[in-house]
Amino acid sequence: MASLQINKRLIMTPGPVAADPRVSQAMSNSILGQFDPEFTGIMDETMELIRKSFKTENKWSFPIDGTSRAGIEAVIASIVEPGDKVLVPIIGRFGYLVTELVERAGGVVHTIEAPMGEVIPEDDIIEKMDEVQPKVLAIIHGETSSGRLQPIQKIGHAAKERGIFTVVDAVATYMGQDIPVDEWALDAVIGGAQKCLSVPSGITPITFNERFSNEINKRKRVEKGIRTENDKSTSHFITSNYLDLTQLQDYWGERRLNHHTEATVNVYGLYEGLKLAVAEGVEARARRHSYHHEAMKEGIKALGLELFGDEEHEMQMVVCVKIPEGINDAEFRAELLSRFGIEIAGTFGAAAGKIWRIGTMGYVAEKQNLLNFITTFGVFLQSQNADNIDPAAGLKAMTDFYDNNSL
Amino acid sequence: MASLQINKRLIMTPGPVAADPRVSQAMSNSILGQFDPEFTGIMDETMELIRKSFKTENKWSFPIDGTSRAGIEAVIASIVEPGDKVLVPIIGRFGYLVTELVERAGGVVHTIEAPMGEVIPEDDIIEKMDEVQPKVLAIIHGETSSGRLQPIQKIGHAAKERGIFTVVDAVATYMGQDIPVDEWALDAVIGGAQKCLSVPSGITPITFNERFSNEINKRKRVEKGIRTENDKSTSHFITSNYLDLTQLQDYWGERRLNHHTEATVNVYGLYEGLKLAVAEGVEARARRHSYHHEAMKEGIKALGLELFGDEEHEMQMVVCVKIPEGINDAEFRAELLSRFGIEIAGTFGAAAGKIWRIGTMGYVAEKQNLLNFITTFGVFLQSQNADNIDPAAGLKAMTDFYDNNSL
Repeated sequence: MASLQINKRLIMTPGPVAADPRVSQAMSNSILGQFDPEFTGIMDETMELIRKSFKTENKWSFPIDGTSRAGIEAVIASIVEPGDKVLVPIIGRFGYLVTELVERAGGVVHTIEAPMGEVIPEDDIIEKMDEVQPKVLAIIHGETSSGRLQPIQKIGHAAKERGIFTVVDAVATYMGQDIPVDEWALDAVIGGAQKCLSVPSGITPITFNERFSNEINKRKRVEKGIRTENDKSTSHFITSNYLDLTQLQDYWGERRLNHHTEATVNVYGLYEGLKLAVAEGVEARARRHSYHHEAMKEGIKALGLELFGDEEHEMQMVVCVKIPEGINDAEFRAELLSRFGIEIAGTFGAAAGKIWRIGTMGYVAEKQNLLNFITTFGVFLQSQNADNIDPAAGLKAMTDFYDNNSL
Repeated sequence: MASLQINKRLIMTPGPVAADPRVSQAMSNSILGQFDPEFTGIMDETMELIRKSFKTENKWSFPIDGTSRAGIEAVIASIVEPGDKVLVPIIGRFGYLVTELVERAGGVVHTIEAPMGEVIPEDDIIEKMDEVQPKVLAIIHGETSSGRLQPIQKIGHAAKERGIFTVVDAVATYMGQDIPVDEWALDAVIGGAQKCLSVPSGITPITFNERFSNEINKRKRVEKGIRTENDKSTSHFITSNYLDLTQLQDYWGERRLNHHTEATVNVYGLYEGLKLAVAEGVEARARRHSYHHEAMKEGIKALGLELFGDEEHEMQMVVCVKIPEGINDAEFRAELLSRFGIEIAGTFGAAAGKIWRIGTMGYVAEKQNLLNFITTFGVFLQSQNADNIDPAAGLKAMTDFYDNNSL
């Protein structure tokens, strides 16, 4: 029986991207029992690494055993009770996802929207907070569907002054941009594994502070079968057991109360990926992402393509580019993938079919990958009769950038 | 920076157990995008392998990206609406877990219980069904907390005749005992990865039939941001988005509608583990589990230990044994682990501190492991002054079993 053998890809999307091979190596280690002291030691170290990654003192910094949206749902479902007002600023698809999660938790959604490609000024959000007076502000940091970086430096503080909880979906920017959680006064933040951290999808680091913890613990209910006489119960419990953050606190905290069977090798992968990222340094890693992002933009523009969206508020790991006239989105991408092993992404919503998203995330954000990409992408675009494409100019602009700028 | 290096263990618990190294190898393959045809091909093949593993024709046979309890919650949360009556037979902790999941979904729990170590006759459950007239019967096949195998051959048919949906938690028995889903008329069944299948925890195969699918699709709601005009919505939607089986059908089915970012390497692992298990054969694998289970029992009894529970209804991969007088449960297990790298399990609930559970699951269920185990376990027990322990007799009984019985 042949064993699984995957063909190589150059994944230039906003994720999932290639895993760092050192992460894959770590994931091939043998299984430990979930209460084996060697494993709980790794759990504790992973929590400390998550704290460092978010520059936070938050005790409660641990991963959810699920993909990014499991992390977002865990946070939303734990803080939002039926009838709670939640303000959701929307600049693309992932804002809608958050409204969906709020509604499923029984919350009442209020929105403030900007068209795809734009962001919402923080002062407008603060004004809207005053108008709506929500319990929670839930906001996307890097809206990958449009490649925009929503400013959030001020709103955490503004929300805190107003007694509002700030929840930030930082799945796409995590470990690619600096997210100083405590400095920005964010109450709960969700990171992502399979993007700038370059760890396989399936585990999601989150962090939340004491204020947030106190609030969700009003809903705490320890499950039957392991509940003791000392455990209070409540009728307004969190409706998920798997994603109940208060039970996960008992599992990741000192009590080590049995919950799910921890996803051992995903933890190994997260642990190793975070060790590598923290060793590189959060700021250094952010600089590396910006650096290659600029290189990509120079190359793309010189190819003859037009960028999409507000250039003042770009995620530093996704270039959004208008699809040239005469090129079919899906067909082009399918052929680029099947013929050259290179993957780029389309998008969702209003801009679907109109833009491509080219990612330079984590392990992929490296000079040789970008040079290989710009050449093949440019030549193939030209061969498909896109107008005014100049592959040589694209490559030259990129090499010029690398020659003239150092990391 | 040193890379992660885990010390070797012999995990003789009811899971998580060692992963098959061929599975670990498969998981070290490089990442593919989730809509890459090479990856969707693997997704389709994985579905087919899950069908074979459950001996079912169910179209809807796919994994949940989370640990076993995520799979159970996905099924319960999708079928149980607020106010729905659910009958839960309880013979141990995992029955309580199901009652918890039902309550969190808003369901009304009815139970029929037996003391730990016993099972409930199927006729009693059928009688209780007639009394309660529930919408759903949710039952544990292998109750690992007591090592008992609950008979379920008849109740699926009985439930179907009564218009009741049967949900089976087969996490612990999956791929270690035969579970012919269609033959037993089970509507939805949840398997487990990290036990007899020997795939790392973090992904959970499930299967459900058309009748179940039709019922849950009454609650279907496609999320905002990707919803089209043709997608109906409803006010009694499933409260989880991540574990909403109807959205997962659109993701794993022909529509390939974006949902979460599939846990790529967990799928690789599941795919490879299932290929290995199906190549071995479902019945052959069940025979292998019974065979080593018998060997373990012979060894344990000859050591001088007493078995726990109804021997007529044993899971064929867990031996439950009474902890000898004078031995402290937690201390003994901790020392067995730290000094010899061998892990066995205690339990939960009424039997906690009174029994050990010794597992022989999947890749671990192999002669050399059992021989190594019985020797070290016996000698160490004796050294801790347990009365009347005879390590030589334990080893002899086990080798005699292997000499006199072939697989």
